This record gives sequence, C-alpha cells and structure tokens, in this order.
Amino acid sequence: MDDVVSDEGIAGFRLGGVAAGIKVRGGLDLGLIASERPASAAGVFTRNRVKAAPVLVARERVRRGTARAILVNAGNANACTGPAGLLAVDRTTKLAARALGCEPSEVLPASTGVIGKPLAVAPFARAMPGLAASLVEAGTSAFARAIMTTDRWPKVARAEVRVRGGRVRILAIAKGAGMIHPDMATTLAFVLTDGEVRAPLLARILREACDETFNAISVDGDTSTNDAILALASGAGAPVTIGSADSRAFARGLTEVLGELGRSIVRDGEGAEHCVRIEVRGLASDAAARKIARTVATSPLVKTALHGRDANWGRLLAAAGRAGVAFDPSVASVKIGGVAVMRGGRPLPASDAAATAAMKAAEYTIELALGDGAGSAHYLTSDLGHAYVDVNASYRS
Amino acid sequence: MDDVVSDEGIAGFRLGGVAAGIKVRGGLDLGLIASERPASAAGVFTRNRVKAAPVLVARERVRRGTARAILVNAGNANACTGPAGLLAVDRTTKLAARALGCEPSEVLPASTGVIGKPLAVAPFARAMPGLAASLVEAGTSAFARAIMTTDRWPKVARAEVRVRGGRVRILAIAKGAGMIHPDMATTLAFVLTDGEVRAPLLARILREACDETFNAISVDGDTSTNDAILALASGAGAPVTIGSADSRAFARGLTEVLGELGRSIVRDGEGAEHCVRIEVRGLASDAAARKIARTVATSPLVKTALHGRDANWGRLLAAAGRAGVAFDPSVASVKIGGVAVMRGGRPLPASDAAATAAMKAAEYTIELALGDGAGSAHYLTSDLGHAYVDVNASYRS
Repeated sequence: MDDVVSDEGIAGFRLGGVAAGIKVRGGLDLGLIASERPASAAGVFTRNRVKAAPVLVARERVRRGTARAILVNAGNANACTGPAGLLAVDRTTKLAARALGCEPSEVLPASTGVIGKPLAVAPFARAMPGLAASLVEAGTSAFARAIMTTDRWPKVARAEVRVRGGRVRILAIAKGAGMIHPDMATTLAFVLTDGEVRAPLLARILREACDETFNAISVDGDTSTNDAILALASGAGAPVTIGSADSRAFARGLTEVLGELGRSIVRDGEGAEHCVRIEVRGLASDAAARKIARTVATSPLVKTALHGRDANWGRLLAAAGRAGVAFDPSVASVKIGGVAVMRGGRPLPASDAAATAAMKAAEYTIELALGDGAGSAHYLTSDLGHAYVDVNASYRS
Repeated sequence: MDDVVSDEGIAGFRLGGVAAGIKVRGGLDLGLIASERPASAAGVFTRNRVKAAPVLVARERVRRGTARAILVNAGNANACTGPAGLLAVDRTTKLAARALGCEPSEVLPASTGVIGKPLAVAPFARAMPGLAASLVEAGTSAFARAIMTTDRWPKVARAEVRVRGGRVRILAIAKGAGMIHPDMATTLAFVLTDGEVRAPLLARILREACDETFNAISVDGDTSTNDAILALASGAGAPVTIGSADSRAFARGLTEVLGELGRSIVRDGEGAEHCVRIEVRGLASDAAARKIARTVATSPLVKTALHGRDANWGRLLAAAGRAGVAFDPSVASVKIGGVAVMRGGRPLPASDAAATAAMKAAEYTIELALGDGAGSAHYLTSDLGHAYVDVNASYRS
C-alpha cells in the first residue's frame, strides 16, 4: 500500500479532514464523512469491557439502522473519561449535526489516541465550520490522513462488485496500530458503499467480513478500548438484496477490502518487519483451529523467533499445545514459508537453512497441519522486535 | 535469593549433580535425588497438549504414589522427540535404577533444554556411576546447579513446620526461565520433605500450593512443554495427617517455599528488571479476579509500560477490560506501588510523578479494585524489555 492515496470517493458521500489542534504535535486530526441522504448504517465494536465514550454512543446510535455522518478525531481516545467523556461526545456530534443540517443522533462518533485525557470541545467548535465546508466526494485522502495517529501510511482499500442491477462500489478506510506514543493502539475502520443495502443485511455482512479479517489480526494481542468499524450504504448505486448472489458478491468485496486493510495494519504494526500468515488446519472445528492460530499468533516466544528469523518449530508447537485444544503432536506437519520443517511428527533438520532463508521475506506463511479434521483458520501477525519495546516503553508524552 | 546456596539437605534423601556433557557449552547438567526408602510421591504437570517424553513418563509413574528417585537433566528438553524420546527416558531411568538398586518405575524423570533434539543416552551411561556414588544429604547446591539452564542464580527455598509430632522440614529446588538460548523456558521444581505424608494428601496440598504460587507467575505467558513439579516425602520425620491442623501447617509451609521460588523465577526472567505483583479484588469470584490478573500480567502493553516505568493506568484498565469478565470501570480504583492513580473511576493525574517514582523499585505491587465483590487474585509478572528480545530473537545455538 502506497503513501499516495487516490482521492476517488463514492457516490452519495462527501469526506474531509482538517488540523483542529487535538493532537499535541499538530497535523490533521479531525475527519468527517457526510451522506447526502440517510444511509443504511452498521457497526462492529470492541469487545473490551472498558469501552470508550464514542464507542458507547456510536453503538447506541447505529441501532436505528440509518446515519448521516461519521465524526472521527485522532490524538485523544476519549476513553476512561467518565460522564465528562459522554458529554464531550454529545457536544462534538451536535456541532457536526448543526454544520451538516441533520440530527445529532444521526452522527456516529469515533476517537483514537491517549486514554484517560479529557476531550476538549473547543478545537471541534473552532474547526467544524471549515471542515464541513471543505467536504467533497474526492476527499478520501484528507479523511484517511486525519484519522492516522502514528501510522506510517494512510490505509485505503477499494472494490467494485458486479450485481444484477449494475455495479456496487466499496471504499474502506482504516487507521493502524502504529504506536510511537503509547495508548494509541486503537483500530478504526470506515466502510462506504453506494450499494442499496438495508441495515440488517449490512450489519450481518460486516460482522462476517470482520471475523474473517480484522478479528484475525494481531500486533500485540491487546484489544483496544476504542476499536470500531462503521459502515454506511448510500443507496446511490445498485441494490443488494438478502440471500441473493448479489449479497454474496458484496460480502466477498467487503471481505477483500477489509482483508487488504488488515494486512496493511499488521505490516504497519509497531516496529514490525514481517507480516506472517499463520494457517492452521486438520482440527475438529474451525473454532478449535482459530484458538490455536490465535495462540500461535500472539505468543511472545513465537513473535521474537519471527523477528530473529529462527525456524523454531518447537515454539510453534509449544504455543499450539497451550491453546486448550486437543490434537496429536505425533502427526503434526509444519511448513515455514513453504519449506517443510516437520512432517508426520518428525523434524526435518536438513530444511532448517531453507526455512531460515524463507523467513527473510517481508510477508510469508506458516502452515500447521495438526490432524485430518476439516477445521481450519488463519491469523495475521507481526514480529516482536526492539522497536516494539522502544515504542511502548516510553513515557506518555 | 543469593548465589550462595546452603548445602543443607533433608533426612532420608541424598542429592547430587555432575557435568555429563549434555549441555553443548558444558557445566553441571545431570542431577539425581535418591530416597533411602520408598517415599510418598506426588506431581503437578504442564497442561500444554504437547508434553515432553519425561512428563508423560513421570505422570504415569507418580500415580503409584511412591518413588525412590528423581533424575533431571538440563540442556535437552526431550520434547517433540516422538517414540525415540520415550525410549530415551526408559533407558536413562533404567541406568539410574541400576545404580541406586531400585526399579526403573520408581525413578521419576524430568528434562529441560532445547525442544526437538534427540536425547543421547551415552552421556547418562558414562556419568551415572560417578553421580550415584557422589550423592550425599548435603548435596543441595550441586543438584540445584545441575538443573539450571541459563538461570542467573540457583533457586532453593526451605521451611520448617511445627506439627504435633515434632517438626517437619521442607526443601524446594527449582529452575527458572532464563532463556539466553531459546526453548529453555521450562520450569521444573522439586520438593523434598521428611514429613510422613501419604501420597493423596501430598498430591492435594501440592496442587493447591501450586495454584497459589507457580500457577500465578508469568514471564511471557508461554506455557512450557516440560513444566513439572515433583514432591517426595521420606517419612523420616513427624507425621502429617489429613484434615488436621498439622496438614494446614504443612500446606502453609509448602506454599511459602514455592512462593519464594516463584518470586525468584520471575526476578530471574529473561531480561527482567522488575518483579511486579498484580493484585485484583472486588470481583464476583476468585476465578473472575484470576482471569483479570492473568490478562494484565501477560499483556505486552502493560509489560512494556512496566519496563519504561510508565504509570499507565489506562493500559492496566484496557487489559482488565479484555479479560472477558464483567466489571464496572466507573468505580475502578488503581494503585501503583501504593500510590493511588485512579479512585472511584476518576484519574488522579497529580499522583503520576509519585507513581512513576514507585515503579523504579525492583519489586512492587499494582492493585486493581474493580468493585465490591469478594473475589480476589494475584499474579506475579516481570517487565518486557530489550533483553527479552535479545534473548529470544537469537538463533538456536
């Protein structure tokens, strides 16, 4: 994914981003998306018990099934801020609603940044008229940059899906887990489509696409208090109806763009030099395979071995073994970057050098075949190196 | 805990350790404990699905309730070694049995070191006669050093318990999680007592003491394939009977020595500069509190903050929030090294500097009060710094 992002938008939506003075160090930090008419809306939110104020509010508002706008700030997560945090959401979304001529309840809020710092409303008040006036359909780049914290590049993905009624376009924008300042692990993603998709269908497809993509990536295993993915469908394009080939095509398109954003986020993980796909198969169920894939993908011993380019299959199996899922290690086969290092429970020490060489690639796959069951799963992970410690051990400043 | 370990032993047992040539770099690497008569035996073993050959064999042998010897090697974990690994356990414990004049089934095996490397029997055969001849009651230091891999110091703890029939002494010896070479995360611990304790009671007390101590420590969240704690009671001393004040006193003594070893292991964790006790209270149950304590203790974001001495209570709460346990963050109180940084859900930013200063201590406590329930738990953890990455990213060599 390039640092240069096309500004191309989606019919029915206008986007923009400005520097409102929320980030201590300056730069674009306030983004806004407006829909010409009430759009179908759906959201997937963090499962963390500690939920940021904007997550609580957006989750509530998205239930009505339609929305007119998404307001996002970077630099302050508005998490662990108590009643004052909820009040700040109320005030800032009112400012956006007034500027756009809609109801505050039609504005979905999202925030990312430092936890536990009161969110000042004044920067929003000062910036809102200019931000609202600047919105254009071709505003993708400004919005994508305004939601970045310490991402090295903006994260945008697009897909076009052929349906019976014509074409449906999907635009997805996310921020990553670059954490030069701590407490900015928040992942936010926004999906816009011109498809005519009703809210319940949009919600279901979004949830399933997330399970395949965003819920299968890990930089450090720490779930943010602010994670949110919001989707708006303007209906300016072709219809996508429930249970149809069209809805399956739309789901594939959505999964594709979220998958692309997920890979970009892992590649941009703090200090990451490698983006590694962990594939697990042969288990009794997908859920069992997923438990193992997740445990391997979040193991500090595995992640330091990936950093050191050490074809250490013992650590892979040891991590798999502590996932709480039954399997027979004596039939296990392991491939690293396509190189078999264990087959049928027997180590292949002669392939060590080839596997080590394969681990120099920026992106590669580790395959764990642990039986003959039909259950499989995958997870994307990054390596754990010194830059992760540098980024996360520094003081909040 | 000091580098100088007293050689004092326990009546009824002889110990020793020699350099058998199992470690690539040399040094003491083979330890043996012999009981004068069949001792009551109990064990607690890793829950990792991938179990090393000595774990499989020791778990089976300990079921008979008595044992005569414990044979431990460092330098090779004999894990993921298939049928050949089981054969190696059979042969090496036969060598010990012959030297000691007991049955092979009375010898409990344990190994620690590199995973996936065949365990050669020849070094055991060469070293066994000399090792068996060297055993003495005052052999604690030699044994404790022979089971070290890259520990910075030997780990020995002692307790004396007053019971109706007189006194019972407890000696516990462990190895730590120093991992200058990867795949040596194994924790092994051995408990000897002169108490007359029957095997079922010994097993129950050992299991409960482990839950309080060894099962509540974490260096990196990765459970080894070789973890094992074995206990032998010689019966040379006073009796400890089930359901008595004596058995409670014995349990306290055992919990004390295992707790001391656990702290020593965390302090000696790879690259650790701090040993931090995470105390969680106010939950609906101890199990709920334990889930949160464990999640906080293993969070990479928390552990890097501990390393950076960053009083980052937001990360503590965010980790607590993803543990899958319900609590109300708006009543949460947090203390770091005795300094309140959040009270009743409100941050206390003025105490930031004092909390940061408290985090300079080598050992301190973090308290999370998350409600008014009676459930509480604790966990010991270490910080995550550059030395952890150095130690674990290097090639197996």
